[in-house]
Amino acid sequence: MKLFDLINDINKPDEKILKEAQDKINNKLKPPGSLGKLEDIAVRLCLIQNKLNPETEKKLMLVFAGDHGITMEGVSAYPSGITPQMVYSFLNKKAAINVLCKQNNIDIKIIDMGVNHDFLINNDIFYNKKINKGTKNFLLEKAMTKDEAILSIQNGIDVFFDVYNKDKIDLIGVGDMGIGNTSSSSGIISVITGISPDETVGRGTGLDDDKLKNKIQVIKKSLKKHSPDKNDPIDILSKIGGFEIGGITGAILASAYKKIPVVIDGIISTAACLLAYKFNKNIIHFIFASHASVEKGQSYALDYMNLNPLLDLQMRLGEGTGAALAMNIIDASSKIMNDMGSFDDIILK
Amino acid sequence: MKLFDLINDINKPDEKILKEAQDKINNKLKPPGSLGKLEDIAVRLCLIQNKLNPETEKKLMLVFAGDHGITMEGVSAYPSGITPQMVYSFLNKKAAINVLCKQNNIDIKIIDMGVNHDFLINNDIFYNKKINKGTKNFLLEKAMTKDEAILSIQNGIDVFFDVYNKDKIDLIGVGDMGIGNTSSSSGIISVITGISPDETVGRGTGLDDDKLKNKIQVIKKSLKKHSPDKNDPIDILSKIGGFEIGGITGAILASAYKKIPVVIDGIISTAACLLAYKFNKNIIHFIFASHASVEKGQSYALDYMNLNPLLDLQMRLGEGTGAALAMNIIDASSKIMNDMGSFDDIILK
Repeated sequence: MKLFDLINDINKPDEKILKEAQDKINNKLKPPGSLGKLEDIAVRLCLIQNKLNPETEKKLMLVFAGDHGITMEGVSAYPSGITPQMVYSFLNKKAAINVLCKQNNIDIKIIDMGVNHDFLINNDIFYNKKINKGTKNFLLEKAMTKDEAILSIQNGIDVFFDVYNKDKIDLIGVGDMGIGNTSSSSGIISVITGISPDETVGRGTGLDDDKLKNKIQVIKKSLKKHSPDKNDPIDILSKIGGFEIGGITGAILASAYKKIPVVIDGIISTAACLLAYKFNKNIIHFIFASHASVEKGQSYALDYMNLNPLLDLQMRLGEGTGAALAMNIIDASSKIMNDMGSFDDIILK
Repeated sequence: MKLFDLINDINKPDEKILKEAQDKINNKLKPPGSLGKLEDIAVRLCLIQNKLNPETEKKLMLVFAGDHGITMEGVSAYPSGITPQMVYSFLNKKAAINVLCKQNNIDIKIIDMGVNHDFLINNDIFYNKKINKGTKNFLLEKAMTKDEAILSIQNGIDVFFDVYNKDKIDLIGVGDMGIGNTSSSSGIISVITGISPDETVGRGTGLDDDKLKNKIQVIKKSLKKHSPDKNDPIDILSKIGGFEIGGITGAILASAYKKIPVVIDGIISTAACLLAYKFNKNIIHFIFASHASVEKGQSYALDYMNLNPLLDLQMRLGEGTGAALAMNIIDASSKIMNDMGSFDDIILK
């Protein structure tokens, strides 16, 4: 499925079963509303999947990785060389996201979208969708060409469909790996929301005060240099984006097209979600915001899309870790809808 | 184990391994602190269990049930007859807590501490620890005798040890069922924190404005009538308590004595935790606050004990439902500590 065929064919969920879904959850063995957000989630799942018994058994996490030329400007506490090392740790199932996916019964796929390293491996959870060996330094030039930007989104779509065509997917999470990618993400959020990098730029993996000031200046100068068009996600992505960000945008678009609920993670996948939202606002009906990241730019992006995060565990790791935890809450909501008794069932014995 | 032998022998966790536990989590494959509260939980589990590989495989939920004479004052949106019906739904595995325990791999036991109904059944998850068929109406007289108050706590201790002596317990959750028990709990919280029932009394299962006003007046008059001694948990429990609240207090004391982490739920188990805290402040080292309840009195009790809830899902059902969800977060923290790689492990291949 091609990006430009797909983006105009993402439709809102059918609301026909809204009342039936609401009645079903209200009639469960509890005071109406007493399960709070679990009830809202359960009803949303029904709408998205267009059935009264929502399914969340088959859970998938897609982790997109890429490198960033902007790291040459000292915007990250860790060197770019960490990106491939972390990809190896994903493939060896030793990273946080592997542990949390295993704990929560979530399948995982790792996609190299543009890591500056050749992975000469054969691993059934690995996709080679490398577009280039990292983006360019966007303080000096565009991060990528327009064609590369489109290809990065297309690669995300293709990975989604590759899994989708082989296996059932009930619920999908999106995560990221890429040293330097909070810089891209904060920039994207500033462009689209109009909020200054003073507010949207955070400490990433752990910058001190001086380096944070430098990072803010780098983003400000880059936005001034490129003037990305806030209504053109491809323009934004090519000027200040990242390959993994484009991949996540593509996966979100494809999931929404196929009416599969998507759980976004921290600032990176939230920025990618903003780009998808700029393509077609209807994606928002399929999105669950998993957690409030410590990386403060994320909150502006969530506000812009009227999303409320489910969790606040003071996390800022990325990889999809917050999404993995929230997927268990969503799974709980689904099981409440399916397996809990109703007031019709109870009889004193 | 007898209550009065146990309460003076609850000790703080040994802090010897604190530095080693902190070093272990810091050296995991992530920026230090980037997993936020998961890291704090992981370190706390190590301290509580006094080992660097904390265990959370064997999870247990104890749900204590009892009826309340105070319901005669119109303080609840549901009639007392719902209490036994909900106990049956627990035993038939159709309630929210059953669904969430099954989803999160938690064993469940239901304890009748004082329901106004005879359960003539044989069910392996059921304990008959009935003290009386509901408490008395504490607007008119003491809810229970001092002996009954002590027995309710002892029964909670006994149930804990019965399970403990048969099976391993790594992590325990406590929940409640009892129409009318938010009235008792708000009263207990007001007595101990000194905060007026105007603030600690909420809508419970769903009172309207007029009935909420009445509930506040009932609690105020009851506190004035009985003047419970804020430093004497047995006095408080006997005057305005509930049998299931005493049971939860006992389970918390016994868990802390055996150095097993305890996850409290909403306002009922938080009030019970306050009583345990009044017996011995050292229990606090073993407590995890699961969620912020909509029932507003809970927040004052949590503040009093310096506890921060992990989740805020706008829930107010009780039963242990918030605790069950939080137990998955605690399990995640444990698995991060045990299964995630460290920077020592990574080598570029």
